[in-house]
Parts: sequence; C-alpha cells; structure tokens
Amino acid sequence: MSLLVVGSVARDTIRTPHGEVQDALGGAAVYFSLAAHNFTDVRLVGVVGDDFDAGDIELLKSRGVDLAGLQVIEGGRTFRWSGEYSEDMNSRETLSVELNVFEHFEPVLPDGYGDSSFVFLANASPATQLSVLEQVESPLCVMADTMDLWIDIARDELVELLGRIDGISLNDAEALQLTGRKNLIDAGQAILDMGPATVIVKKGEHGAVLFTAGAVVALPAYPTGEVVDPTGAGDSFAGALMGSLAQAGAVDEERLKTAIAYGSVVASFTCEGFGTARLAELGEDEVKDRFLKYCESLRICR
Amino acid sequence: MSLLVVGSVARDTIRTPHGEVQDALGGAAVYFSLAAHNFTDVRLVGVVGDDFDAGDIELLKSRGVDLAGLQVIEGGRTFRWSGEYSEDMNSRETLSVELNVFEHFEPVLPDGYGDSSFVFLANASPATQLSVLEQVESPLCVMADTMDLWIDIARDELVELLGRIDGISLNDAEALQLTGRKNLIDAGQAILDMGPATVIVKKGEHGAVLFTAGAVVALPAYPTGEVVDPTGAGDSFAGALMGSLAQAGAVDEERLKTAIAYGSVVASFTCEGFGTARLAELGEDEVKDRFLKYCESLRICR
Repeated sequence: MSLLVVGSVARDTIRTPHGEVQDALGGAAVYFSLAAHNFTDVRLVGVVGDDFDAGDIELLKSRGVDLAGLQVIEGGRTFRWSGEYSEDMNSRETLSVELNVFEHFEPVLPDGYGDSSFVFLANASPATQLSVLEQVESPLCVMADTMDLWIDIARDELVELLGRIDGISLNDAEALQLTGRKNLIDAGQAILDMGPATVIVKKGEHGAVLFTAGAVVALPAYPTGEVVDPTGAGDSFAGALMGSLAQAGAVDEERLKTAIAYGSVVASFTCEGFGTARLAELGEDEVKDRFLKYCESLRICR
Repeated sequence: MSLLVVGSVARDTIRTPHGEVQDALGGAAVYFSLAAHNFTDVRLVGVVGDDFDAGDIELLKSRGVDLAGLQVIEGGRTFRWSGEYSEDMNSRETLSVELNVFEHFEPVLPDGYGDSSFVFLANASPATQLSVLEQVESPLCVMADTMDLWIDIARDELVELLGRIDGISLNDAEALQLTGRKNLIDAGQAILDMGPATVIVKKGEHGAVLFTAGAVVALPAYPTGEVVDPTGAGDSFAGALMGSLAQAGAVDEERLKTAIAYGSVVASFTCEGFGTARLAELGEDEVKDRFLKYCESLRICR
C-alpha cells in the first residue's frame, strides 16, 4: 500500500570516533525512505535548496522514492546539521544547525498523494505535522516522531496531534519527558492514554518497546559490534517499520512485532556505515537474512 | 542436578523512591538460592554472625536450600549493606558497608558438596572464588559473577579465574571496564577470548546479551512497570539461570536462552517487592506463566 513520509532532507557533517563525513546526504525523510524502499515504494514530501545534489536526487529515485513532493527552493540553501559523537557513541553533541529552507517548510502534498494509506510524520513542529493531517483523506495508519524541543515549546499542539494519530515513535528520554514518569513502562502506557493506539519507545542499542491496548512487548536491538555512525538509526527504524506495515497492508500486534524486527535489523545496517552509505546500498536479501537470524535468536524452546 | 552457590549472606537497609526496609534478609547467595529453588534444590555456602535471624534460616530451609555449608561465627556480626536508589532507580549510592564476618570468609565445602554438578561463584574476590574451584571435583558447569572492585584491584586473579570456568555473568559497565572496549558486543566477544565458553552481559532494565562461540543473542528484560526495589535483581537472574540449567542437566545455546528467559522473568518479580519479599513468596506457577508470556512476546511471525 502507498506510504508517505513528510520530513527533513539535509546535508550532514558527522564526526564519530571512526571518522568523519562532510555535507553528506541526510535528513529524517531520506533515512526513512531509503529504509522503507526495501518493502514498498515511498512518496517523500520535503524541501531543499537549489544547492541540493543532482546525484542524490537520482539515488533516491533509483530506490523507488517518488520525489513529486520535494520542493526545490530557487536561491535557497538546504538544511544543514553537524554533530559529533562521544567516544562510546551513546551521546552526541550538535555542533551546528542551519535550518535554511526547512525553517519555513510548509508541506504541500502534490496531486494524488491525498490517498496515501500509510503516513509517517517525521520530526517537525506539531503544527507542521497537523497541517499534513489536513491534507490526507482517510489514511489507514498515521504515525509520527517528535523531539524534546517540541515537548518543551509546543506541548499543547503535540498533545492535540497525539489525539489524532494512530501511533507515535519516540525515544526513551522523550517518553519520560512527555509524561513526567520515571519508569519507561509506565511512561509508554501513559502515552497510550493520550490517544494513539500504538506507542513505540526507541532505546537505541537496547532495542524498542511496543505498547498497545493489549500488550507491552520489549524487543532487543540487533546486536552489532560494527557501529561506526548511529546517525539516522531511529529514522531508518521508522522507515523499515512503516514500510513493513504498508507492505502487510494492516496493523495489529503481530504485524507491529514483525515491523519492529525489520526496523531493528535495518537500523543495525545503518549504524555500520557513515551517514546513508550502508543503508543506500542495502539489498533485500541481506535484510531478509538478518531478519530471519534475528527472529530465530528470539525463539525460545520451552 | 545438584546446584551449589557460594557467596554473601547479608542484612540490607534499602531506600528507594517507593519506601525503605531496614536490616532485611539479603546477600547474593540468598537472592540466588530463593530464585534457583523454583527449579532445583540448592546448596548454599556462606557465612553469618550469631546475630542472624532464626526465622530467615527457616525461610531458606523451607525453600529447599541446604544450609550445611552456612558457617555461623559465634560472636560475629553478619555482613551489612545499606544503599539508596536515585529517583529513576537507574543508579544507586552505597551508604555504608560493614563486611564483618564476610571480610575473612574462607569458603569450606561440607562433606558431599564436592560432587556438585552446577556451581555458581557469586561476587567475591577472585582468590576466594578460585579456592572454591579447588574443592569441587568435576563440575559440569561453573559460572561466576564479579564486580568493578576486583577488575580494579585483582585483575590477574580474575583473568586466571576466567581461564578456568565455563561462564561469567557480569554487568555492562563491568564488561566494558574489563576489556577496555567501547562497544558491548565487542566487549562480550573479547571476554570469550579470555576463556569462558559462555559470557552473559546483564543490562538491568534492558535485558541481557548471551555470547557463545557460535552466537550473540540479545534478550530483553521482562517489562514491568512495578519496580519498587531492584536490589538483588542480578543475583535472582543468576539464580534462575543456573537453576534452569541445573534442571536441564546440560548447557547449550538453546538451554542458555531458556535459562536467560527464566532469569529475566524471576528478576522482574524480585524488583516488584522490597528486598527478598516478592521473591520469597514466588510460586512456580507464576514463574511459568510469566515465562510463557515472555517467550510468546518474542515469537515473531514471518
């Protein structure tokens, strides 16, 4: 089924203990799309300046990403982010952010996108995310991401959004911040009470926890020793998750578990290269192989 | 098969955001035994002073714990520990430690214990742990725990121990400290290279990772929102793990996964009460029910 993502397209400069890349293709919607294309075609809505690389446009198109919704602002400059990871890569410092054309991004869905069945509202202001909701007709499943900034400065709009969408994926610190709880399981359940039928709390190298009305399921990350750059892991996770759900064409606990498993597997590949490098070259067979290995490792004989 | 644990027996004073207990039954060997008794009878070797509570002796005996190896030092005072947990319970501060009779603990296995098939060397100096190895004849599986202190001050003896045992369970910070690695998966594999066929890295609320020659398997903790006191969770985990293996009578990857699952489940119960309170009243049925729920939650339909 059709999958739409609305979010940032960026150029990232990333430093980790394993090396550095400058002005590399990045942004939530890009990681999302490159992960999701392993499951279904993706419609991307975002904005870039006219400095955006033609080669990157071609790369995305070659991966089945529909760019009809990518606005190119003449004379504008693409969103730029620069960050550096700590020695153990469990924390990172943002060195600079230039919002540029993303600062006044007003997503406009091109003709024919209003019928999208699966919609992912990548991290943006809740007001921007709500404006997309107005443009989709009767989606089967809308999920969103958010960040600490919006919990701080746009809590009311975020709460309104939560009341109108089907699912939210956010990280553990954000879940605690949003709810004021100290225990993550408590926090996940408190977010369910705010509206969405599905809450997915991402814990980085420790995996993710799924909350639905009927279940709380913790699933581990795929264990990899080759982490060279965690940038985009969360967005790749979301891309594979939504891609898997769109491919299945329905959302229930079993399909959500499968989708989280795919999310964990694809995120592990993302971490094994700088920026989108590993993700962009990923083949469906390696995804499937690692997925089967992951599922098998979780099968416990009684 | 027979299961022996050698380690501390203590009186703990614990403060958490949920309350406080004073001079409650505690110690690694106690948590271990109360967890393991759900699977098999346990032989406990430890030391207490004559201030130790007769009621606690009865409690342990009633749970199938053989106390022939519990030394009672006349005029001695039992090991006491006092600690306070942070608001989110992810860290704790030790307020006081009185080693008392545990300071010069020299484990002596009573007659008939030398044939123990499964042996757990709970946290103690590597020299003390090695002295137990000399007293067991041909155990099927010896596992040990350790702590940051011994990695700091007794590294050589710890490395010697690792070369002579079958498995080690330690927490994530200790695994990184022991190996100097920054990535946990790297660290676990580096510990395998030090000798033991099995390495289990405990990550508290994030579960555990199993390392063997053939596999790296990450398993989540059982998600519980009712954490009132995490004291003893790691030792309960080890107790259920070794109890499950001793019940199975063999060690291989499948049995280790099952054992870790039981460890996670029993540890989750431990956290739901203060000290040993919840663990001591635990019934085999509730353990089995939660175990089945845990396994089912990890079963991913493809």
